[in-house]
Amino acid sequence: MKLARFISKGRLLQGRLQDGMLIDPAGEAHHPEEVVWQLPVQPGKVLALALNFAEHAEEFGLRKPTEPALFWKPNTSLLPHKGTVVYPRGARFMHFECELAVIIGRPMRRVKAKEAMDYVGGYTIANDLVVRDYVTNIFRPPIRAKGWDTFGPLGPFYVTADEVQDPHGLAMRAYVNGELRQEASTRGMLFSIPEILEFISRFMTLEAGDVILTGTPKGISQVRPGDLMRMEIEGLGALENPIEWESEEAEPVVSEEGERSLVL
Amino acid sequence: MKLARFISKGRLLQGRLQDGMLIDPAGEAHHPEEVVWQLPVQPGKVLALALNFAEHAEEFGLRKPTEPALFWKPNTSLLPHKGTVVYPRGARFMHFECELAVIIGRPMRRVKAKEAMDYVGGYTIANDLVVRDYVTNIFRPPIRAKGWDTFGPLGPFYVTADEVQDPHGLAMRAYVNGELRQEASTRGMLFSIPEILEFISRFMTLEAGDVILTGTPKGISQVRPGDLMRMEIEGLGALENPIEWESEEAEPVVSEEGERSLVL
Repeated sequence: MKLARFISKGRLLQGRLQDGMLIDPAGEAHHPEEVVWQLPVQPGKVLALALNFAEHAEEFGLRKPTEPALFWKPNTSLLPHKGTVVYPRGARFMHFECELAVIIGRPMRRVKAKEAMDYVGGYTIANDLVVRDYVTNIFRPPIRAKGWDTFGPLGPFYVTADEVQDPHGLAMRAYVNGELRQEASTRGMLFSIPEILEFISRFMTLEAGDVILTGTPKGISQVRPGDLMRMEIEGLGALENPIEWESEEAEPVVSEEGERSLVL
Repeated sequence: MKLARFISKGRLLQGRLQDGMLIDPAGEAHHPEEVVWQLPVQPGKVLALALNFAEHAEEFGLRKPTEPALFWKPNTSLLPHKGTVVYPRGARFMHFECELAVIIGRPMRRVKAKEAMDYVGGYTIANDLVVRDYVTNIFRPPIRAKGWDTFGPLGPFYVTADEVQDPHGLAMRAYVNGELRQEASTRGMLFSIPEILEFISRFMTLEAGDVILTGTPKGISQVRPGDLMRMEIEGLGALENPIEWESEEAEPVVSEEGERSLVL
């Protein structure tokens, strides 16, 4: 099933996608273009992987990580499908990153890779936005690079795991203003989903609703205010978000540390 | 007020500390030694500062950060007063860190330092535990170093801001098995609470209940299974947690990356 949370006619509803319409629990149909999309899931926490595609590491000229390189996306950074990303005043380089997001279905701790997929509830699409200015260490990007409000578009649907036969064989495409900017497959992951879940659950409980962003493939690409981003993953729909300038009243944010090299 | 959440006679209650007893909303008194302590607050997110005391930076031989050095404590790492910390099999160096924890009282974004204290709801004590083996970069410790389940003792009380005249002038003491191991004052902070809140809220919304750990002073000190830790901060009570070995069935966790230098 493709499950969505949305506001329609002033009501916050949950529903499933069927024949191109969102069907709420009372059976009423809502047109996807006429609703206000909400996050498909409200995670307790969101973890993400840096450099989980070999070609992406190569485009930075970096070694592949020997272990999953984890970082955090704050829940306050999350943004639903169609929500507006705010481009911080003072930022020079904002990049999008199309990623497969794994939604945990039930609590897991110290689960081995071979059983880990039993704990996956489903999948959605993430756009892991970053102000590259602040990335002084790509293996462990600072919270300020990835943690801005609106820097975590997620959606549009919660696609239940039974609908995704092979999460490691999904085509990924990212468009900016209709132009193809990133094209790859989830099979390019260095650490597979079960390996990632085994690694994290060795030291941390993953709870139902937690989300893991599995990394972005090659294709670093700058975006600017006025752009419309569209992230597609096979079987999961398309996640669209426009970008706008931060309010003119906002004081530009500049880093005292300035721009640094992108290596460890 | 000193507010606590606790389980007494099978009921989850909230109450205030008065004359050494916990008074629930019905006016019933509960002895603090006879309740099961719960977290004083359930944060949406917990951020922490690395190297926010000059002498602590010096004991690592490190430069002072030029900006607040933020990292994340997962909400799944939090542990109440009296809860048992689990010492991971395979870890060589576990350190405790006594820290003043700031509890956000209402949502804040882009709030200047001079107004920031108006958004503080109160304070509590945190013990920012770490497996030092995995700290390859002290300015930005990896999630695995600080994010283990039980590595975030927090409590015992939510002490409302009106009870704390000067949060930058509180004595801090940490004991292990009754022996004084760390003694300092919150006045040693490099970045003050309002400066930290201005910095974070420039890019991220802080929500009511979010918690900021303001850094630990000098006095790195190893702890082992069997130890009892007691963190005291003036006016906030004492946070006590014992340490036990992880279950013998648990496979020891070793880092492929091994031990590295502690510098940037």
